[in-house]
Amino acid sequence: MRVVVSGAGGFVGRALIARLKGHEIIALDTAANAIPDQPGVTPIVGNIGDAAVLENAFSSGCDAVIHLASVPGGAAERNTRHARTVNIEASMELADVAARAGSTPRFVFASSIAALGEITTKHVTDATPCAPTTVYGAHKLMIEDWLSALTRRGDIDAISLRLPGIVARPKGPSGLKSAFLSDLFHTLAAGEEFTMPVSADATTWLMSVDCAADNVIHALTTALSTVPETRAVTLPTLHVRISDLVAEIGRQLGQSQVRIKYLPDESLERTFGAFPAINTTAAESLGFFNDRDLPMLVRKALMSTKMPPR
Amino acid sequence: MRVVVSGAGGFVGRALIARLKGHEIIALDTAANAIPDQPGVTPIVGNIGDAAVLENAFSSGCDAVIHLASVPGGAAERNTRHARTVNIEASMELADVAARAGSTPRFVFASSIAALGEITTKHVTDATPCAPTTVYGAHKLMIEDWLSALTRRGDIDAISLRLPGIVARPKGPSGLKSAFLSDLFHTLAAGEEFTMPVSADATTWLMSVDCAADNVIHALTTALSTVPETRAVTLPTLHVRISDLVAEIGRQLGQSQVRIKYLPDESLERTFGAFPAINTTAAESLGFFNDRDLPMLVRKALMSTKMPPR
Repeated sequence: MRVVVSGAGGFVGRALIARLKGHEIIALDTAANAIPDQPGVTPIVGNIGDAAVLENAFSSGCDAVIHLASVPGGAAERNTRHARTVNIEASMELADVAARAGSTPRFVFASSIAALGEITTKHVTDATPCAPTTVYGAHKLMIEDWLSALTRRGDIDAISLRLPGIVARPKGPSGLKSAFLSDLFHTLAAGEEFTMPVSADATTWLMSVDCAADNVIHALTTALSTVPETRAVTLPTLHVRISDLVAEIGRQLGQSQVRIKYLPDESLERTFGAFPAINTTAAESLGFFNDRDLPMLVRKALMSTKMPPR
Repeated sequence: MRVVVSGAGGFVGRALIARLKGHEIIALDTAANAIPDQPGVTPIVGNIGDAAVLENAFSSGCDAVIHLASVPGGAAERNTRHARTVNIEASMELADVAARAGSTPRFVFASSIAALGEITTKHVTDATPCAPTTVYGAHKLMIEDWLSALTRRGDIDAISLRLPGIVARPKGPSGLKSAFLSDLFHTLAAGEEFTMPVSADATTWLMSVDCAADNVIHALTTALSTVPETRAVTLPTLHVRISDLVAEIGRQLGQSQVRIKYLPDESLERTFGAFPAINTTAAESLGFFNDRDLPMLVRKALMSTKMPPR
């Protein structure tokens, strides 16, 4: 299978490509040294907004596309116009080019729970309407719409996966407002004190990068007989209380006294710290899955803190 | 009130501007001679995708925006990329510029029933999910999404009006697949034979251009206290059987024998000739309205055939 992957050098992209052995991978990224050096992987360095880059990537056709590249939350707020060129314009063009290059190729889009918006209901289900409040979330929803329209037209065979917070991302600037949830793992693993910008009772949705990559792989080939008309599903996720998360990290690190200081930020608490229970029947009936339990999530997230930074 | 109007020289735009006397109108259009020459109207000739045009239009601020410009159905299918630059990129930029220029300005967006997609249910309501199958319809839905997100953020105060087929548009190439519904009026008014590309029993949704312009004016100032979270409403419309429409046009023209030949096209019949009953409670509770009855619709549509072509 020939698979074109955008954002191949990113956090999820690298975990994904390690799992795609045996396939022919066309790996797009803006940074050459971020793309895994692996048999079967053809690196293409450049921006997906560049027509020549897309032409090169799809010149031999494609069986499937995995579209991970984006300008994420905080970065999109700081530069809306730049975010639009990548998240909207380049994403729409990528889908159009894929439609012409392949024969109704499977198109897996890394959407985000940001498409749902600020969750004010007590229980999120597949019927909860999308009401994004961030530039990033609105962009994700708009591309979900475009991909489902192209699917109805028979041009592509899309599935959009709304990913929750993924841990533990590499340290350093990611453009993500939720970066603190990853920094928590790095800082505690280094034996340092972590200042937590949400309260101990805050609740959030988390997934390990391993689990995210496994779900994307599942999306590449699974039958979509029961997929919603929107072709978008919110992935199953663990609903985690921050104090429980901190305690489990401490337990696995063998720290009798976890070094943590709570200094809640009102905005972050509202955006990332008040996630309710969630029901993801649509995704589960398609075979998607979460990390099973908190110990498994923490184990995998701590493992991923040892991955080399991009 | 200072109102910026895009597509001011178009069919709906000109009917609209005639109704906006007493306001300060910044009228944008690509064609200079299409913009009505009227006191209070400042014409700006150019493309809304051009940053200098937008800067010029909003240099003195704005109280409201009416966004009518678009690349319509058939034209959007023929050139998807060009349609994207106008329908998506320029529309998003227009909203962003308006947000910066005004103080949460009212933003009235001419959306379309094309956003709903092919209607397969027996009865359309405000709860019918949008599932567009045309490039044009998908673009309209995506902009509805963007405008509702900007509204949640407090940047603008948007209302998207999903317009049904508007009659009678001027003769000549419009880029609209539904142009035959307007050509019907012109051809019969000229006493010529019309070849109808849908069956006599076909049913469609129609609105006169007067009624469309009146609804847009209503949207400019009406309170939106009961508006849906999506900020999008399907406008009330008449549900018209083609044979009834033809008979009423003949009656008003004083033709005892209407010259019509039915030659249904399968694709047009499916897209424009199988519209079910429709309930538009959301729009009605905001004060929007249809043409009241078929005789009124036909009377206004026949009057509009006498408007000079653009």
